[in-house]
Amino acid sequence: MVTESQRRAVFQKCTRFLPGHGRRPPNEILAALAGEARETDDADTYGEGETLSAFEHEIAALLGKPAALFLPSGTMAQQIALRIHAEHHRCKTVLFHPTCHLELWEQKGYERLHGLHGRLCGDPRRVIRLDDLRPVVEPFAALLLELPQREIGGQLPSWEELTAQVAWARERGAAVHMDGARLWESVPFYARPAAEIAALFDTVYVSFYKGLGALAGAALAGPPEFIAEARIWQRRHGGNLVTLLPFVLSARAGLHERIGRFEAYRQRAQSIARILAAIPGVRVKPDPPHTNMMHVCLPGEPDALFERALGIADRTRVWLAGRVRAPEVPGQSLLELYVGDGATSITDAEVDELFRELVR
Amino acid sequence: MVTESQRRAVFQKCTRFLPGHGRRPPNEILAALAGEARETDDADTYGEGETLSAFEHEIAALLGKPAALFLPSGTMAQQIALRIHAEHHRCKTVLFHPTCHLELWEQKGYERLHGLHGRLCGDPRRVIRLDDLRPVVEPFAALLLELPQREIGGQLPSWEELTAQVAWARERGAAVHMDGARLWESVPFYARPAAEIAALFDTVYVSFYKGLGALAGAALAGPPEFIAEARIWQRRHGGNLVTLLPFVLSARAGLHERIGRFEAYRQRAQSIARILAAIPGVRVKPDPPHTNMMHVCLPGEPDALFERALGIADRTRVWLAGRVRAPEVPGQSLLELYVGDGATSITDAEVDELFRELVR
Repeated sequence: MVTESQRRAVFQKCTRFLPGHGRRPPNEILAALAGEARETDDADTYGEGETLSAFEHEIAALLGKPAALFLPSGTMAQQIALRIHAEHHRCKTVLFHPTCHLELWEQKGYERLHGLHGRLCGDPRRVIRLDDLRPVVEPFAALLLELPQREIGGQLPSWEELTAQVAWARERGAAVHMDGARLWESVPFYARPAAEIAALFDTVYVSFYKGLGALAGAALAGPPEFIAEARIWQRRHGGNLVTLLPFVLSARAGLHERIGRFEAYRQRAQSIARILAAIPGVRVKPDPPHTNMMHVCLPGEPDALFERALGIADRTRVWLAGRVRAPEVPGQSLLELYVGDGATSITDAEVDELFRELVR
Repeated sequence: MVTESQRRAVFQKCTRFLPGHGRRPPNEILAALAGEARETDDADTYGEGETLSAFEHEIAALLGKPAALFLPSGTMAQQIALRIHAEHHRCKTVLFHPTCHLELWEQKGYERLHGLHGRLCGDPRRVIRLDDLRPVVEPFAALLLELPQREIGGQLPSWEELTAQVAWARERGAAVHMDGARLWESVPFYARPAAEIAALFDTVYVSFYKGLGALAGAALAGPPEFIAEARIWQRRHGGNLVTLLPFVLSARAGLHERIGRFEAYRQRAQSIARILAAIPGVRVKPDPPHTNMMHVCLPGEPDALFERALGIADRTRVWLAGRVRAPEVPGQSLLELYVGDGATSITDAEVDELFRELVR
């Protein structure tokens, strides 16, 4: 078994990274932020300040919503969004997929802090379908749809399916909220601007640290009165910090740097997917990838495979994966591959060679 | 009436600042953090990382508690602490002063997120006394005591009174939690180390951005199993960020830089208090100040007085106060004065002259 410190030591040695945007030392990240701050007279204070406010306006415009709020985390953004929808609908039930971030990664904050009830819809291994929603007969305040769905390799519903689900929720009198943590990644798939996708939804959450590579930070966009309420809940959550400046500057820089790259990331992901799928025993999901992320299924036990990936990284200084997990099928391994800036330094031929070695 | 942008413009012009630690441009703050990060290989990730963990241990040791948790805000830290005490005591009632931060500045998050009931104790204009607690006959989970009490000019109870209140709560089977946002400021008053004051309490919250001048950040210290639970609640709150590195580095730097200065700050505050109290019509509260903060009561209407303070700042580039508020007495004004690094660049003679001009 690989220990965390072994894993770290190899990661630190690596110079190229297949998943993500690569490694950057903290002092370089912070020095870059100092550069970003050159034209900022003053840090934001408790949610107020020119730089913060201008960035909130920029996000709102990008998403085609009248207002937006910057928050430290998506966990905070989404619980707040659902709580407000629940209060407005006088109903505590919200609908989401079994692999929704709120269900898996937030220690049930939606229930323990907000008293909400999460009605799970759909099969954990694929996107929600209209047929998964129709059996919901109880009243509900909001339907949450995640675009794309991270836990299942970045799958997306077709535009027709998506609009049908939104229409269904609206007919039921409910709000529709987008978990758009990776909305930027969905834009090439739908071949529509982010605002056109967001227009289907009452409220939209986006993240700045995932695809955009910022330090941290999230935004919630929607109607002005909704966002005004969200600011109050942000304070209740303890997220109205004395200043959020490092995160705001980092989010702005990440957005400006990477917003135009997602089509290229996706093309590269699809070319990598073709290479991987041609290796005996290797499968990708979805095939072809809908976005610049995918699941890669490999023959072999996860622990042994990760150890081998680490050995390859130790020798070649090319990082292939941070984690290999066990899928439902015994003797198989699964890794998530997010294609970003890191992959540009690695050729297709190298990808082929390294993965062939990995599964040999 | 002074507009916010006029206020900002004058603030930007100032070179010396009577309250607080002075103004530092954001790019300088961030460049200093980049320096702090030189020996940090990797940012903390979701609450894990060497720099973060070492700092949590340092805080725990400083407070004489076995464990500590770094959080983005005090709002989050204290709601979490009270929620855990409430669950352990199977009781939703918590006791605090009417000017407690939870009551005034958190949009009742303790109630709306945690379902807690705040039983207010004591007179809003002075510290809690044992006599204020004795009438509480209902069961309660925890007593929160703020040391010093910010909203009333940094007043502190005597050591005897403090220990008697703690003993009373323990006899009632309740936990005792310290709002030690400004605990560092209390150390000279009690002439005891922070750990000796903290030893009276089950759990302690401290802030890094107030007296210590960091960008943001807070810590909660207590028993290991309590802190383990608090980590879960931090995630529920959306405060378990992908990284907290800028805040951690800033908090560590602020602590190391200023922890040894609070006795000097307090001596300067007491000398300033003597100067101010000698000006006809001016009073300070408490007199003498218990800590390096105080309320200054001045003759005159708040709006007019603030406008005059801004005029003085515009001319002399010395910032006297960020806010002047109306106390209960008509025709009087009240300003909070926090004495830190800023005051070292202003002589006693200047303080005398500027305040005499202010109230003329």
